[in-house]
Amino acid sequence: MLPSGIRIWGLPKIPEIEPGMDLAETILAALAQSGISCTGSMIFVIAQKVVSKAEGCIVRLQDVVPSPQALAWAAKYRKDARMVETVLRQSRRIVRMDRGVIIAETHHGFVCANAGVDASNAPAGTVILLPPDPDRSAEQLRLRFERELRRNVAVILSDTFGRPWRTGLTNVALGIAGLSPFIDYRGQVDSFGRTLQSTVLAIADELAGAAELVMGKTGGVPAAIVEGFPFVAAAGSGKDLIRPAEDDLFR
Amino acid sequence: MLPSGIRIWGLPKIPEIEPGMDLAETILAALAQSGISCTGSMIFVIAQKVVSKAEGCIVRLQDVVPSPQALAWAAKYRKDARMVETVLRQSRRIVRMDRGVIIAETHHGFVCANAGVDASNAPAGTVILLPPDPDRSAEQLRLRFERELRRNVAVILSDTFGRPWRTGLTNVALGIAGLSPFIDYRGQVDSFGRTLQSTVLAIADELAGAAELVMGKTGGVPAAIVEGFPFVAAAGSGKDLIRPAEDDLFR
Repeated sequence: MLPSGIRIWGLPKIPEIEPGMDLAETILAALAQSGISCTGSMIFVIAQKVVSKAEGCIVRLQDVVPSPQALAWAAKYRKDARMVETVLRQSRRIVRMDRGVIIAETHHGFVCANAGVDASNAPAGTVILLPPDPDRSAEQLRLRFERELRRNVAVILSDTFGRPWRTGLTNVALGIAGLSPFIDYRGQVDSFGRTLQSTVLAIADELAGAAELVMGKTGGVPAAIVEGFPFVAAAGSGKDLIRPAEDDLFR
Repeated sequence: MLPSGIRIWGLPKIPEIEPGMDLAETILAALAQSGISCTGSMIFVIAQKVVSKAEGCIVRLQDVVPSPQALAWAAKYRKDARMVETVLRQSRRIVRMDRGVIIAETHHGFVCANAGVDASNAPAGTVILLPPDPDRSAEQLRLRFERELRRNVAVILSDTFGRPWRTGLTNVALGIAGLSPFIDYRGQVDSFGRTLQSTVLAIADELAGAAELVMGKTGGVPAAIVEGFPFVAAAGSGKDLIRPAEDDLFR
Protein backbone atom coordinates (compact mmCIF):
# COMPACT_ATOMS: atom_id res chain seq x y z
CA MET A 1 0.00 0.00 0.00
CA LEU A 2 1.29 3.41 -0.91
CA PRO A 3 0.98 6.10 1.72
CA SER A 4 -1.54 8.81 1.15
CA GLY A 5 0.76 11.36 2.70
CA ILE A 6 4.14 11.86 4.33
CA ARG A 7 5.07 14.60 6.77
CA ILE A 8 8.60 15.81 7.35
CA TRP A 9 9.57 18.11 10.17
CA GLY A 10 12.89 19.69 11.00
CA LEU A 11 13.80 19.49 14.67
CA PRO A 12 14.91 22.92 15.87
CA LYS A 13 16.62 24.00 19.07
CA ILE A 14 19.24 21.26 19.17
CA PRO A 15 22.23 22.85 20.89
CA GLU A 16 25.78 22.67 19.53
CA ILE A 17 26.87 19.05 20.04
CA GLU A 18 30.17 18.39 21.79
CA PRO A 19 32.13 15.18 22.28
CA GLY A 20 30.61 12.94 24.90
CA MET A 21 27.19 14.58 24.89
CA ASP A 22 24.19 12.28 24.95
CA LEU A 23 22.88 12.89 21.45
CA ALA A 24 19.81 10.67 21.83
CA GLU A 25 18.71 12.54 24.93
CA THR A 26 19.39 15.90 23.29
CA ILE A 27 17.28 14.98 20.28
CA LEU A 28 14.46 13.57 22.41
CA ALA A 29 14.42 16.76 24.49
CA ALA A 30 14.22 18.87 21.33
CA LEU A 31 11.39 16.67 20.07
CA ALA A 32 9.47 17.04 23.33
CA GLN A 33 9.80 20.83 23.14
CA SER A 34 9.01 21.05 19.43
CA GLY A 35 5.29 20.53 19.62
CA ILE A 36 5.60 17.90 16.87
CA SER A 37 3.07 15.19 17.48
CA CYS A 38 3.43 11.84 15.72
CA THR A 39 1.09 8.96 16.27
CA GLY A 40 2.62 6.18 14.20
CA SER A 41 6.00 4.89 13.11
CA MET A 42 8.75 7.50 12.88
CA ILE A 43 11.91 7.76 10.84
CA PHE A 44 14.61 9.98 12.35
CA VAL A 45 17.08 11.41 9.88
CA ILE A 46 20.14 12.71 11.70
CA ALA A 47 22.97 14.69 10.12
CA GLN A 48 26.21 12.71 10.27
CA LYS A 49 27.99 15.76 11.61
CA VAL A 50 26.27 15.84 14.99
CA VAL A 51 26.83 12.10 15.39
CA SER A 52 30.52 12.58 14.58
CA LYS A 53 30.75 15.43 17.07
CA ALA A 54 29.07 13.44 19.83
CA GLU A 55 31.40 10.53 19.13
CA GLY A 56 34.47 12.77 19.11
CA CYS A 57 35.35 12.20 15.44
CA ILE A 58 37.18 15.51 15.33
CA VAL A 59 40.74 16.23 14.23
CA ARG A 60 42.69 19.29 15.36
CA LEU A 61 44.65 20.37 12.30
CA GLN A 62 47.55 21.57 14.46
CA ASP A 63 48.12 17.94 15.46
CA VAL A 64 48.43 16.69 11.87
CA VAL A 65 51.87 16.27 10.26
CA PRO A 66 51.38 16.20 6.50
CA SER A 67 53.15 13.63 4.35
CA PRO A 68 55.25 14.76 1.36
CA GLN A 69 52.38 13.71 -0.95
CA ALA A 70 49.91 15.87 0.98
CA LEU A 71 52.37 18.81 1.02
CA ALA A 72 52.95 18.63 -2.72
CA TRP A 73 49.31 18.37 -3.67
CA ALA A 74 48.27 21.08 -1.22
CA ALA A 75 50.92 23.43 -2.62
CA LYS A 76 49.78 22.79 -6.19
CA TYR A 77 46.15 23.65 -5.45
CA ARG A 78 46.64 26.09 -2.53
CA LYS A 79 44.98 23.81 0.00
CA ASP A 80 45.76 23.19 3.67
CA ALA A 81 48.24 20.29 3.66
CA ARG A 82 47.01 19.12 7.05
CA MET A 83 43.48 18.88 5.66
CA VAL A 84 44.78 16.96 2.62
CA GLU A 85 46.70 14.62 4.91
CA THR A 86 43.57 13.99 6.97
CA VAL A 87 41.63 13.17 3.80
CA LEU A 88 44.30 10.73 2.63
CA ARG A 89 44.26 8.97 5.99
CA GLN A 90 40.46 8.54 5.79
CA SER A 91 40.76 7.03 2.29
CA ARG A 92 41.35 3.48 1.22
CA ARG A 93 41.35 4.43 -2.46
CA ILE A 94 41.68 7.70 -4.33
CA VAL A 95 39.10 7.75 -7.10
CA ARG A 96 40.09 11.13 -8.57
CA MET A 97 42.60 13.70 -7.40
CA ASP A 98 42.43 16.46 -9.92
CA ARG A 99 41.68 20.19 -10.30
CA GLY A 100 41.84 20.72 -6.54
CA VAL A 101 39.22 18.06 -5.88
CA ILE A 102 39.79 14.77 -4.05
CA ILE A 103 37.15 12.11 -4.62
CA ALA A 104 38.01 9.19 -2.39
CA GLU A 105 36.64 5.90 -1.22
CA THR A 106 36.51 5.92 2.56
CA HIS A 107 37.48 2.95 4.69
CA HIS A 108 33.74 2.21 4.92
CA GLY A 109 33.48 2.15 1.10
CA PHE A 110 31.64 5.45 0.53
CA VAL A 111 32.84 7.39 -2.50
CA CYS A 112 32.67 11.11 -1.81
CA ALA A 113 34.56 14.39 -1.82
CA ASN A 114 37.41 14.60 0.69
CA ALA A 115 36.54 11.15 2.08
CA GLY A 116 33.82 12.86 4.09
CA VAL A 117 36.27 15.12 5.97
CA ASP A 118 34.61 18.50 6.36
CA ALA A 119 35.35 21.84 7.98
CA SER A 120 31.88 23.36 7.78
CA ASN A 121 30.06 23.66 11.10
CA ALA A 122 33.28 22.53 12.81
CA PRO A 123 35.00 24.46 15.62
CA ALA A 124 37.83 26.70 14.38
CA GLY A 125 41.02 24.79 13.60
CA THR A 126 39.29 21.43 13.39
CA VAL A 127 37.71 19.17 10.81
CA ILE A 128 35.07 16.52 11.32
CA LEU A 129 35.43 12.91 10.18
CA LEU A 130 32.69 10.43 9.34
CA PRO A 131 31.72 8.15 12.24
CA PRO A 132 33.63 4.86 12.08
CA ASP A 133 30.49 2.71 12.02
CA PRO A 134 27.43 4.68 10.89
CA ASP A 135 25.11 1.66 11.14
CA ARG A 136 26.10 1.07 14.74
CA SER A 137 25.63 4.76 15.55
CA ALA A 138 22.18 4.65 13.93
CA GLU A 139 21.20 1.52 15.81
CA GLN A 140 22.29 2.98 19.17
CA LEU A 141 20.10 6.02 18.55
CA ARG A 142 17.23 3.86 17.31
CA LEU A 143 17.19 1.73 20.45
CA ARG A 144 17.08 4.83 22.64
CA PHE A 145 14.32 6.45 20.58
CA GLU A 146 12.24 3.30 20.44
CA ARG A 147 12.50 2.72 24.18
CA GLU A 148 11.49 6.28 24.94
CA LEU A 149 8.79 6.71 22.30
CA ARG A 150 7.39 3.16 22.44
CA ARG A 151 6.73 2.78 18.78
CA ASN A 152 8.37 1.51 15.62
CA VAL A 153 11.39 3.75 14.91
CA ALA A 154 13.98 3.77 12.14
CA VAL A 155 17.09 5.94 12.01
CA ILE A 156 19.04 7.20 9.01
CA LEU A 157 22.38 8.97 9.39
CA SER A 158 22.68 11.33 6.45
CA ASP A 159 25.49 13.20 4.78
CA THR A 160 25.69 15.58 1.85
CA PHE A 161 27.39 14.10 -1.23
CA GLY A 162 28.07 15.31 -4.74
CA ARG A 163 27.54 13.05 -7.70
CA PRO A 164 28.95 12.68 -11.20
CA TRP A 165 27.09 14.19 -14.14
CA ARG A 166 24.71 16.30 -12.04
CA THR A 167 25.35 19.67 -10.44
CA GLY A 168 24.76 20.27 -6.76
CA LEU A 169 24.73 18.07 -3.71
CA THR A 170 22.03 15.87 -2.21
CA ASN A 171 21.76 14.10 1.10
CA VAL A 172 22.26 10.35 1.16
CA ALA A 173 22.11 7.66 3.83
CA LEU A 174 25.40 6.59 5.43
CA GLY A 175 24.05 4.59 8.35
CA ILE A 176 20.69 2.87 8.69
CA ALA A 177 18.87 1.11 11.49
CA GLY A 178 15.39 -0.33 11.48
CA LEU A 179 14.44 -0.25 7.82
CA SER A 180 15.56 -1.67 4.51
CA PRO A 181 17.32 0.91 2.31
CA PHE A 182 15.46 -0.42 -0.73
CA ILE A 183 12.06 -1.10 -2.16
CA ASP A 184 12.55 -3.85 -4.68
CA TYR A 185 10.00 -3.90 -7.48
CA ARG A 186 11.73 -6.67 -9.42
CA GLY A 187 9.22 -9.37 -10.25
CA GLN A 188 6.23 -7.10 -9.67
CA VAL A 189 4.06 -6.27 -12.64
CA ASP A 190 3.39 -2.82 -14.07
CA SER A 191 -0.01 -1.50 -15.19
CA PHE A 192 0.33 -3.46 -18.46
CA GLY A 193 1.19 -6.74 -16.76
CA ARG A 194 4.88 -6.51 -17.71
CA THR A 195 7.26 -7.83 -15.07
CA LEU A 196 9.65 -5.10 -13.88
CA GLN A 197 13.27 -6.06 -14.47
CA SER A 198 15.67 -3.77 -12.71
CA THR A 199 13.75 -1.41 -10.52
CA VAL A 200 15.21 -1.22 -7.02
CA LEU A 201 14.54 2.14 -5.42
CA ALA A 202 17.05 3.46 -2.89
CA ILE A 203 14.41 4.82 -0.56
CA ALA A 204 16.87 5.45 2.28
CA ASP A 205 18.69 7.94 0.06
CA GLU A 206 15.38 9.50 -0.99
CA LEU A 207 14.37 9.81 2.69
CA ALA A 208 17.74 11.40 3.50
CA GLY A 209 17.30 13.87 0.65
CA ALA A 210 13.72 14.63 1.65
CA ALA A 211 14.85 15.38 5.19
CA GLU A 212 17.53 17.75 3.91
CA LEU A 213 14.73 19.96 2.61
CA VAL A 214 13.82 20.83 6.20
CA MET A 215 17.34 20.66 7.66
CA GLY A 216 19.33 23.06 5.52
CA LYS A 217 22.94 23.91 6.27
CA THR A 218 23.01 27.03 8.37
CA GLY A 219 19.86 27.00 10.47
CA GLY A 220 21.00 24.65 13.22
CA VAL A 221 18.55 21.90 12.29
CA PRO A 222 20.61 18.68 12.27
CA ALA A 223 17.70 16.29 12.63
CA ALA A 224 14.37 15.65 10.96
CA ILE A 225 11.42 13.35 11.48
CA VAL A 226 9.47 11.59 8.76
CA GLU A 227 6.01 10.34 9.58
CA GLY A 228 3.60 8.44 7.38
CA PHE A 229 6.08 6.48 5.28
CA PRO A 230 4.97 2.87 5.71
CA PHE A 231 8.30 1.12 6.09
CA VAL A 232 8.68 -2.47 7.14
CA ALA A 233 10.91 -2.89 10.17
CA ALA A 234 14.10 -4.61 8.98
CA ALA A 235 17.74 -4.73 9.89
CA GLY A 236 19.05 -2.65 6.96
CA SER A 237 22.53 -1.24 6.53
CA GLY A 238 24.02 1.80 4.90
CA LYS A 239 26.65 -0.53 3.45
CA ASP A 240 24.00 -2.09 1.22
CA LEU A 241 23.84 1.25 -0.61
CA ILE A 242 27.48 0.95 -1.66
CA ARG A 243 27.64 -0.48 -5.16
CA PRO A 244 29.88 -3.55 -5.27
CA ALA A 245 33.06 -2.95 -7.27
CA GLU A 246 32.15 -5.68 -9.77
CA ASP A 247 28.88 -3.90 -10.66
CA ASP A 248 30.44 -0.45 -10.92
CA LEU A 249 31.28 0.82 -14.40
CA PHE A 250 32.71 4.04 -12.94
CA ARG A 251 35.56 2.95 -10.66
CA MET B 1 13.54 30.60 7.08
CA LEU B 2 13.42 26.83 7.21
CA PRO B 3 10.01 25.22 6.99
CA SER B 4 8.65 23.67 10.12
CA GLY B 5 7.06 20.92 8.12
CA ILE B 6 6.56 19.59 4.62
CA ARG B 7 3.70 17.41 3.44
CA ILE B 8 3.87 15.13 0.45
CA TRP B 9 0.85 13.42 -1.05
CA GLY B 10 0.58 10.96 -3.87
CA LEU B 11 -2.22 11.70 -6.30
CA PRO B 12 -4.21 8.53 -6.94
CA LYS B 13 -6.85 7.71 -9.54
CA ILE B 14 -5.04 9.18 -12.51
CA PRO B 15 -6.18 7.04 -15.46
CA GLU B 16 -3.80 5.51 -17.98
CA ILE B 17 -2.51 8.43 -20.05
CA GLU B 18 -2.71 8.19 -23.83
CA PRO B 19 -1.28 10.42 -26.55
CA GLY B 20 -3.18 13.65 -26.92
CA MET B 21 -4.90 13.49 -23.55
CA ASP B 22 -5.04 16.73 -21.56
CA LEU B 23 -2.65 15.80 -18.76
CA ALA B 24 -3.11 19.04 -16.81
CA GLU B 25 -6.87 18.60 -16.73
CA THR B 26 -6.52 14.92 -15.78
CA ILE B 27 -4.24 15.79 -12.86
CA LEU B 28 -6.44 18.66 -11.71
CA ALA B 29 -9.47 16.36 -11.78
CA ALA B 30 -7.61 13.77 -9.70
CA LEU B 31 -6.60 16.51 -7.26
CA ALA B 32 -10.17 17.72 -6.92
CA GLN B 33 -11.34 14.19 -6.17
CA SER B 34 -8.48 13.37 -3.82
CA GLY B 35 -9.63 15.29 -0.80
CA ILE B 36 -6.14 16.82 -0.54
CA SER B 37 -6.45 20.36 0.70
CA CYS B 38 -3.53 22.76 0.31
CA THR B 39 -3.64 26.36 1.38
CA GLY B 40 -0.28 27.72 0.23
CA SER B 41 2.22 27.27 -2.55
CA MET B 42 2.31 23.85 -4.17
CA ILE B 43 4.99 21.88 -5.96
CA PHE B 44 3.70 19.27 -8.39
CA VAL B 45 6.07 16.42 -9.12
CA ILE B 46 4.99 14.56 -12.23
CA ALA B 47 6.50 11.32 -13.50
CA GLN B 48 8.16 11.89 -16.85
CA LYS B 49 6.42 8.82 -18.21
CA VAL B 50 2.91 10.25 -18.16
CA VAL B 51 4.16 13.46 -19.76
CA SER B 52 5.87 11.42 -22.47
CA LYS B 53 2.71 9.42 -23.04
CA ALA B 54 0.53 12.52 -23.27
CA GLU B 55 3.01 14.04 -25.73
CA GLY B 56 3.14 10.87 -27.80
CA CYS B 57 6.82 10.12 -27.13
CA ILE B 58 6.23 6.43 -27.83
CA VAL B 59 8.05 4.17 -30.26
CA ARG B 60 6.54 0.99 -31.66
CA LEU B 61 9.40 -1.48 -31.77
CA GLN B 62 8.01 -3.12 -34.93
CA ASP B 63 8.72 0.13 -36.76
CA VAL B 64 12.41 0.23 -35.79
CA VAL B 65 15.07 -1.12 -38.16
CA PRO B 66 18.20 -1.82 -36.13
CA SER B 67 21.62 -0.75 -37.37
CA PRO B 68 24.45 -3.30 -37.63
CA GLN B 69 25.92 -1.86 -34.40
CA ALA B 70 22.64 -2.36 -32.55
CA LEU B 71 22.27 -5.88 -33.95
CA ALA B 72 25.78 -6.89 -32.89
CA TRP B 73 25.51 -5.49 -29.39
CA ALA B 74 22.02 -6.91 -28.88
CA ALA B 75 23.18 -10.37 -29.98
CA LYS B 76 26.15 -10.25 -27.60
CA TYR B 77 24.01 -9.43 -24.57
CA ARG B 78 20.72 -11.07 -25.65
CA LYS B 79 18.86 -7.75 -25.88
CA ASP B 80 16.15 -6.60 -28.29
CA ALA B 81 18.08 -4.98 -31.16
CA ARG B 82 15.19 -2.59 -31.86
CA MET B 83 15.36 -1.38 -28.26
CA VAL B 84 19.14 -0.93 -28.55
CA GLU B 85 18.68 0.99 -31.80
CA THR B 86 16.12 3.26 -30.14
CA VAL B 87 18.55 3.93 -27.28
CA LEU B 88 21.36 4.79 -29.71
CA ARG B 89 19.09 7.21 -31.58
CA GLN B 90 18.22 8.98 -28.32
CA SER B 91 21.92 9.35 -27.43
CA ARG B 92 24.41 12.02 -28.37
CA ARG B 93 27.23 10.24 -26.54
CA ILE B 94 27.70 6.73 -25.21
CA VAL B 95 29.26 6.98 -21.75
CA ARG B 96 29.56 3.23 -21.13
CA MET B 97 28.35 0.28 -23.17
CA ASP B 98 29.43 -2.73 -21.21
CA ARG B 99 28.10 -5.86 -19.48
CA GLY B 100 24.69 -5.46 -21.09
CA VAL B 101 24.28 -1.91 -19.79
CA ILE B 102 24.13 1.24 -21.89
CA ILE B 103 24.81 4.49 -20.04
CA ALA B 104 24.27 7.31 -22.48
CA GLU B 105 24.08 11.06 -22.63
CA THR B 106 20.75 12.03 -24.16
CA HIS B 107 20.35 14.83 -26.65
CA HIS B 108 19.24 16.99 -23.71
CA GLY B 109 22.48 16.17 -21.83
CA PHE B 110 21.13 13.80 -19.17
CA VAL B 111 23.39 10.86 -18.41
CA CYS B 112 21.32 7.79 -17.62
CA ALA B 113 20.68 4.15 -18.43
CA ASN B 114 19.33 3.51 -21.93
CA ALA B 115 19.16 7.26 -22.65
CA GLY B 116 15.90 7.27 -20.73
CA VAL B 117 14.19 4.80 -23.10
CA ASP B 118 12.03 2.53 -20.98
CA ALA B 119 9.58 -0.32 -21.49
CA SER B 120 8.07 -0.39 -18.01
CA ASN B 121 4.50 0.85 -17.80
CA ALA B 122 4.49 1.07 -21.61
CA PRO B 123 1.87 -0.60 -23.82
CA ALA B 124 2.99 -4.00 -25.17
CA GLY B 125 5.41 -3.71 -28.07
CA THR B 126 6.33 -0.11 -27.34
CA VAL B 127 8.93 1.85 -25.43
CA ILE B 128 8.63 5.36 -24.02
CA LEU B 129 11.12 8.14 -24.76
CA LEU B 130 11.92 11.18 -22.64
CA PRO B 131 9.99 14.31 -23.61
CA PRO B 132 12.00 16.46 -26.04
CA ASP B 133 11.86 19.58 -23.84
CA PRO B 134 11.10 18.70 -20.20
CA ASP B 135 11.30 22.34 -19.05
CA ARG B 136 8.72 23.38 -21.61
CA SER B 137 6.46 20.49 -20.63
CA ALA B 138 6.79 21.50 -16.98
CA GLU B 139 6.05 25.13 -17.73
CA GLN B 140 2.94 24.26 -19.75
CA LEU B 141 1.60 22.25 -16.82
CA ARG B 142 2.58 24.96 -14.35
CA LEU B 143 0.65 27.65 -16.22
CA ARG B 144 -2.46 25.50 -16.27
CA PHE B 145 -2.18 24.59 -12.58
CA GLU B 146 -1.52 28.17 -11.51
CA ARG B 147 -4.44 29.51 -13.50
CA GLU B 148 -6.80 26.92 -12.06
CA LEU B 149 -5.54 26.92 -8.46
CA ARG B 150 -4.76 30.64 -8.19
CA ARG B 151 -1.64 30.30 -6.13
CA ASN B 152 2.12 30.01 -6.53
CA VAL B 153 2.83 26.69 -8.28
CA ALA B 154 6.05 24.98 -9.32
CA VAL B 155 6.32 21.82 -11.41
CA ILE B 156 9.07 19.21 -11.50
CA LEU B 157 9.14 16.45 -14.11
CA SER B 158 10.87 13.49 -12.50
CA ASP B 159 12.51 10.34 -13.74
CA THR B 160 14.20 7.41 -12.05
CA PHE B 161 17.98 7.30 -12.57
CA GLY B 162 20.77 5.08 -11.33
CA ARG B 163 24.05 6.54 -10.18
CA PRO B 164 27.68 5.46 -9.99
CA TRP B 165 29.03 4.09 -6.71
CA ARG B 166 25.65 3.66 -5.02
CA THR B 167 23.18 0.81 -5.42
CA GLY B 168 19.57 1.43 -6.34
CA LEU B 169 17.76 4.17 -8.19
CA THR B 170 16.44 7.53 -7.05
CA ASN B 171 14.15 10.04 -8.69
CA VAL B 172 15.70 13.20 -10.09
CA ALA B 173 14.37 16.31 -11.79
CA LEU B 174 14.45 16.41 -15.60
CA GLY B 175 12.26 19.43 -16.18
CA ILE B 176 11.55 22.34 -13.87
CA ALA B 177 9.21 25.30 -13.95
CA GLY B 178 8.64 27.92 -11.29
CA LEU B 179 11.49 27.30 -8.86
CA SER B 180 15.27 27.30 -8.75
CA PRO B 181 16.73 23.78 -8.69
CA PHE B 182 19.27 24.90 -6.10
CA ILE B 183 19.69 26.44 -2.70
CA ASP B 184 23.10 28.06 -2.73
CA TYR B 185 24.73 28.38 0.68
CA ARG B 186 28.03 29.70 -0.67
CA GLY B 187 28.97 32.84 1.19
CA GLN B 188 26.63 32.14 4.10
CA VAL B 189 28.19 31.47 7.47
CA ASP B 190 27.88 28.32 9.54
CA SER B 191 27.27 28.16 13.29
CA PHE B 192 30.96 28.95 13.92
CA GLY B 193 31.05 31.95 11.62
CA ARG B 194 32.95 30.12 8.90
CA THR B 195 31.92 31.02 5.37
CA LEU B 196 30.61 28.00 3.47
CA GLN B 197 32.65 27.31 0.34
CA SER B 198 31.03 24.78 -1.93
CA THR B 199 27.59 23.98 -0.63
CA VAL B 200 24.96 24.13 -3.35
CA LEU B 201 22.07 21.80 -2.62
CA ALA B 202 20.18 20.30 -5.55
CA ILE B 203 16.78 20.69 -3.94
CA ALA B 204 14.87 19.90 -7.14
CA ASP B 205 16.42 16.43 -7.14
CA GLU B 206 15.67 16.06 -3.43
CA LEU B 207 12.06 17.07 -4.07
CA ALA B 208 11.82 14.58 -6.93
CA GLY B 209 13.21 11.83 -4.69
CA ALA B 210 10.89 12.79 -1.84
CA ALA B 211 7.90 12.58 -4.16
CA GLU B 212 8.97 9.12 -5.34
CA LEU B 213 8.34 7.90 -1.79
CA VAL B 214 4.60 8.39 -2.33
CA MET B 215 4.54 7.55 -6.05
CA GLY B 216 6.09 4.10 -6.24
CA LYS B 217 6.29 2.14 -9.46
CA THR B 218 3.30 -0.13 -9.65
CA GLY B 219 0.48 1.65 -7.86
CA GLY B 220 -0.61 3.98 -10.62
CA VAL B 221 0.44 7.15 -8.79
CA PRO B 222 2.36 9.21 -11.39
CA ALA B 223 2.02 12.55 -9.62
CA ALA B 224 2.65 13.98 -6.17
CA ILE B 225 2.13 17.27 -4.41
CA VAL B 226 4.54 18.91 -2.00
CA GLU B 227 3.20 21.55 0.34
CA GLY B 228 5.07 23.60 2.89
CA PHE B 229 8.43 23.87 1.17
CA PRO B 230 9.10 27.60 1.03
CA PHE B 231 10.50 27.99 -2.45
CA VAL B 232 11.08 31.28 -4.15
CA ALA B 233 9.33 31.59 -7.49
CA ALA B 234 12.03 31.59 -10.16
CA ALA B 235 12.46 30.52 -13.75
CA GLY B 236 14.62 27.44 -13.08
CA SER B 237 15.57 24.75 -15.56
CA GLY B 238 16.30 21.07 -15.38
CA LYS B 239 19.29 21.77 -17.63
CA ASP B 240 20.97 23.61 -14.74
CA LEU B 241 21.23 20.24 -12.98
CA ILE B 242 23.41 18.84 -15.76
CA ARG B 243 27.06 19.17 -14.74
CA PRO B 244 29.05 21.01 -17.40
CA ALA B 245 31.58 18.77 -19.15
CA GLU B 246 34.50 20.91 -17.95
CA ASP B 247 33.53 20.34 -14.29
CA ASP B 248 32.93 16.62 -14.66
CA LEU B 249 35.73 14.30 -13.57
CA PHE B 250 33.70 11.26 -14.65
CA ARG B 251 33.05 11.69 -18.35
